[in-house]
Amino acid sequence: VADPLLISVDAMGGDHGPSVIVPALDRLFGLGLVREVRFLLHGDEAETAKTVRTFPRVAAVSELRPSTSVISSDAKPAHAMRRGRGSSMWNAVASVQTGEARAVISAGNTGALMAISRLQLRMVGGMERPALVANWPTSRGVTSVLDVGANILCDADRLVEFAIMGAAFHRSLHGTSRPSIGLLNVGVESEKGHDEVRGAHRLLGEARFDLDYRGFVEGDDIAKGTVDVVVTDGFTGNVALKTAEGLARFFRDELRAALTSNLISKIGAFVAQGALRGMARRLDPASVNGSPFLGLNGIVVKSHGSSDAAGFAHAVEMAINLARADITSAIERDLGRRETRRAILGVVGGSEIVANAEALPA
Amino acid sequence: VADPLLISVDAMGGDHGPSVIVPALDRLFGLGLVREVRFLLHGDEAETAKTVRTFPRVAAVSELRPSTSVISSDAKPAHAMRRGRGSSMWNAVASVQTGEARAVISAGNTGALMAISRLQLRMVGGMERPALVANWPTSRGVTSVLDVGANILCDADRLVEFAIMGAAFHRSLHGTSRPSIGLLNVGVESEKGHDEVRGAHRLLGEARFDLDYRGFVEGDDIAKGTVDVVVTDGFTGNVALKTAEGLARFFRDELRAALTSNLISKIGAFVAQGALRGMARRLDPASVNGSPFLGLNGIVVKSHGSSDAAGFAHAVEMAINLARADITSAIERDLGRRETRRAILGVVGGSEIVANAEALPA
Repeated sequence: VADPLLISVDAMGGDHGPSVIVPALDRLFGLGLVREVRFLLHGDEAETAKTVRTFPRVAAVSELRPSTSVISSDAKPAHAMRRGRGSSMWNAVASVQTGEARAVISAGNTGALMAISRLQLRMVGGMERPALVANWPTSRGVTSVLDVGANILCDADRLVEFAIMGAAFHRSLHGTSRPSIGLLNVGVESEKGHDEVRGAHRLLGEARFDLDYRGFVEGDDIAKGTVDVVVTDGFTGNVALKTAEGLARFFRDELRAALTSNLISKIGAFVAQGALRGMARRLDPASVNGSPFLGLNGIVVKSHGSSDAAGFAHAVEMAINLARADITSAIERDLGRRETRRAILGVVGGSEIVANAEALPA
Repeated sequence: VADPLLISVDAMGGDHGPSVIVPALDRLFGLGLVREVRFLLHGDEAETAKTVRTFPRVAAVSELRPSTSVISSDAKPAHAMRRGRGSSMWNAVASVQTGEARAVISAGNTGALMAISRLQLRMVGGMERPALVANWPTSRGVTSVLDVGANILCDADRLVEFAIMGAAFHRSLHGTSRPSIGLLNVGVESEKGHDEVRGAHRLLGEARFDLDYRGFVEGDDIAKGTVDVVVTDGFTGNVALKTAEGLARFFRDELRAALTSNLISKIGAFVAQGALRGMARRLDPASVNGSPFLGLNGIVVKSHGSSDAAGFAHAVEMAINLARADITSAIERDLGRRETRRAILGVVGGSEIVANAEALPA
């Protein structure tokens, strides 16, 4: 790449603001991840400048864009949309909207970030809201699970859109040329589940979206890593994700308690600590920071509000990789291909679409 | 209790049949759980009698009821209903239907057991299918989660029924006089979720079903043990349960791998094994065997098909406790109380029911 990649950062978002975000950017140099990258830092001028000054490597590739306010972590999305103009989050997204920056990262209020992103960037095609992706550690690597919370009601078409976007995301991030896709259900037989999931199963199975669709998967297939991408509605996905995060924390607490219950097990824990350290944490779906909002005309990555510098750095790395892979164009193209097929088939909407799709050119 | 409690057992169900089921009953003596209990063992005469003969304590309190066939583990429910007559499962359920036995346990085919139970025992009130309960280990004990798979689509009324039945179940099993209840959602604010969950929230919050309703809970509240009973539709509940089971297995595998990765950690594991042994298994929702089918006119407990004698014994213990607490009458009474209130309110169905319920006598 000749031109440096410009990444927009909401320097005020999250629990810690610049004091974590600027060191996070500095970490990326140590990891060799920021060649040909520059940053736009949106934040309070004095506070941000003060921190940047202590990290010369960051200062050398960053431009400070002063903003006049910060969207609070408990602000309602509607309020953020009406009154958020001029805030660090608003301006950080605007840098992507104008085409100046190629991606934006914020650790701020999720609802506000989603509302402001939709307002400024707009959705691709006929989608209503972005899909949230969880990067879920599995016994075979990382599975991308979507949607994990933004779209509570999903018809069959929406689930197909998630499959298309999830494949593009997984490919962009992990380099898998044709990620395998599963549809989350309560059984693998085709009569299982509700109309929406059965409808999506029919569409994905018949319509040849150039996806490696493997059919229904069940909850335990997530941790097994049976497929690269697990597609589900935002209600089910959110519950599954939080249930797993809760269990992972429970497991960590119990492991700690078991290993400090008496002197003998303390000794055992001390001896085995190299093997145990971080093991339970690594299996927590919350351990992989950075959730993209898929389906926007632009790359937006949400970082956990409480994440540390290592976590925020991971979210920035994800944004860089998604920008380099030009995921927005990929999604637009793949969704567009589907729209074309729908037009050929004379379809207006709904799930009962594809009768003889196999007869069509792929 | 003057009369002994008569429990009906499908001796042929599950992967192992009498060779595990009879020893399981014998275990209950060791645990002091079978005073004043007698068993009806439905199974192949020769095979069952041969095993029973080697367990004199079981033989002394059991009556063998010969059956002529076994429902296979892969039989379709419809087929089991049509052709299952005379099988050990069919006859075991029939003993409850006639009033002879107070509960039935089977480790056989879940779909067949549900179909045969519905056909013979019928549902209480206007319910369509039984709810399946998971006994979920948490940091504070055990949380009852329902439905975990039988009812894929649930309107607000159905969710209220689950709350009523879940409370009766938790009280019967754990002795908590007023179990706390939470409704599973993607957030705790009242505007979160879909119509069904918001409708149930309104009903449970306003209508005073004599339940300790605590409002919405999220996925991570399950492992925290925030409430005694978590209510959800069968789709979401099934996905959450299987996701957690998958994660628990993943933990176990990783823990084993971490502790045998090199000599040092092997030594540590050896020293700490007392503390670690079974820890990861104990946290697995699959570790507590025995799932009741709630909402039938009679007590039916499903055991895992692959469970060992200890697991099957736990399912039998559950059936005994539910029978002693007379959970069927409790559910009928509590659902009936709701029906009466609905009649007073002039309600025919649907979710938009209770306008001024607070004004009514409790």
